Amino acid sequence: MEQPNASMLIIGDELLSGRTQDTNMYYLANELTEVGINLSEARFIRDDTATIVANIVELSTRFDYLFTSGGIGPTHDDITTDCVAQAFGKQVTIRSDAFKILKKYYDEKGIELNEARLRMARIPETADLIENSISGAPGYIIENVYVMAGVPKIFQSMLKTILPKLKKGSPTLSRSVKLHKGEGDIALELEQIVREFSKLNFGSYPFNEKGVHGTNIVIRGKDNKLMIKAEEKVRTLA
Amino acid sequence: MEQPNASMLIIGDELLSGRTQDTNMYYLANELTEVGINLSEARFIRDDTATIVANIVELSTRFDYLFTSGGIGPTHDDITTDCVAQAFGKQVTIRSDAFKILKKYYDEKGIELNEARLRMARIPETADLIENSISGAPGYIIENVYVMAGVPKIFQSMLKTILPKLKKGSPTLSRSVKLHKGEGDIALELEQIVREFSKLNFGSYPFNEKGVHGTNIVIRGKDNKLMIKAEEKVRTLA
Repeated sequence: MEQPNASMLIIGDELLSGRTQDTNMYYLANELTEVGINLSEARFIRDDTATIVANIVELSTRFDYLFTSGGIGPTHDDITTDCVAQAFGKQVTIRSDAFKILKKYYDEKGIELNEARLRMARIPETADLIENSISGAPGYIIENVYVMAGVPKIFQSMLKTILPKLKKGSPTLSRSVKLHKGEGDIALELEQIVREFSKLNFGSYPFNEKGVHGTNIVIRGKDNKLMIKAEEKVRTLA
Repeated sequence: MEQPNASMLIIGDELLSGRTQDTNMYYLANELTEVGINLSEARFIRDDTATIVANIVELSTRFDYLFTSGGIGPTHDDITTDCVAQAFGKQVTIRSDAFKILKKYYDEKGIELNEARLRMARIPETADLIENSISGAPGYIIENVYVMAGVPKIFQSMLKTILPKLKKGSPTLSRSVKLHKGEGDIALELEQIVREFSKLNFGSYPFNEKGVHGTNIVIRGKDNKLMIKAEEKVRTLA
């Protein structure tokens, strides 16, 4: 089975100014890996209309899936929805399905669904809503683009909703070997192993734990038997 | 003074598989913000030659600076240097200046400068070396591209070396106001303030601390007096 590939667009000035540290990319990467979808590229971009539109067009064309995070709230700097609509040549309106969700959510809380909050019911035509179990305001799916919130808890909740419906690949298996040798000590022998097991993918990741240097070798592939053989070989480098 | 802009390319399968969480982007973002350089875009890409080359060409053309992180070690999956050279049509050779640095470093440690470690002296012609005070192997600068290690300690040490030499902008000032109101409660009044202070940039960032919702409003700009006035207005939203 072909492994579907995915991209991610993380939208927000606050991330590129260092004010906020993103956790959504790391979370998405782990979740996709588990279900056999390949996160191929992730981009952090600023809250700028032309930039957002261009990236949505490019990434949704190049990859099976595009997941976005950020910029769908009620304030003036939340411009993602208008950009997504522009990218697909769609109109944005206050949709009755989204309106009902927000109305119910705020009525239950005894909070007024004011003009600002109502902005969160602005959804591009033809998009399918993604449930937000945390704070009401839905995300949405338009073609192969999954538009989700930037707040980590809400992003995670939305991802949980959509994951079961995605086309998945056969999960990539991985085996990790921790060696207490520097990369430079094992690189040449490792290269021979890499050549011998050309159907597998080998990553070499140096680490430094409390002053002790070493290397983690990660073997990735689909063929478990072959990977066990490769792991045995890698262990001889210790 | 025009604010220089910058981009970042973070190279490595381990980041996109969720195996490793990046810290270099967050670190760079903070350091650049402090010296008045605008980090405009950051991309995480896989260890794939065509992808790396295309991104180096694109980002180094579009931005004043491109900083890269990852893929310059001694192992088979460290392909960044060959990609950088290809992007600029340069040859890669074992350079005597880089060789001397490595030789001295490993001699002092009593470690053999073997064939694998020698790979780290492979530097594109015409590039200027960046000192690595942690583990010897240098990074380098070629045109407006700054090629640095992926290991956070080494990345940070290299950045410290190059920062004083970069063309800087006037630092963007920022003032932050913490409001214990949801974004939806303040969005409309905030929008009026945003219109009134059109020379300033306003970001609205919802937070949830131990179940308490609120919004951080961040005002960014160059004109401190104007920002003080804007902050006063924002505080009236409390």
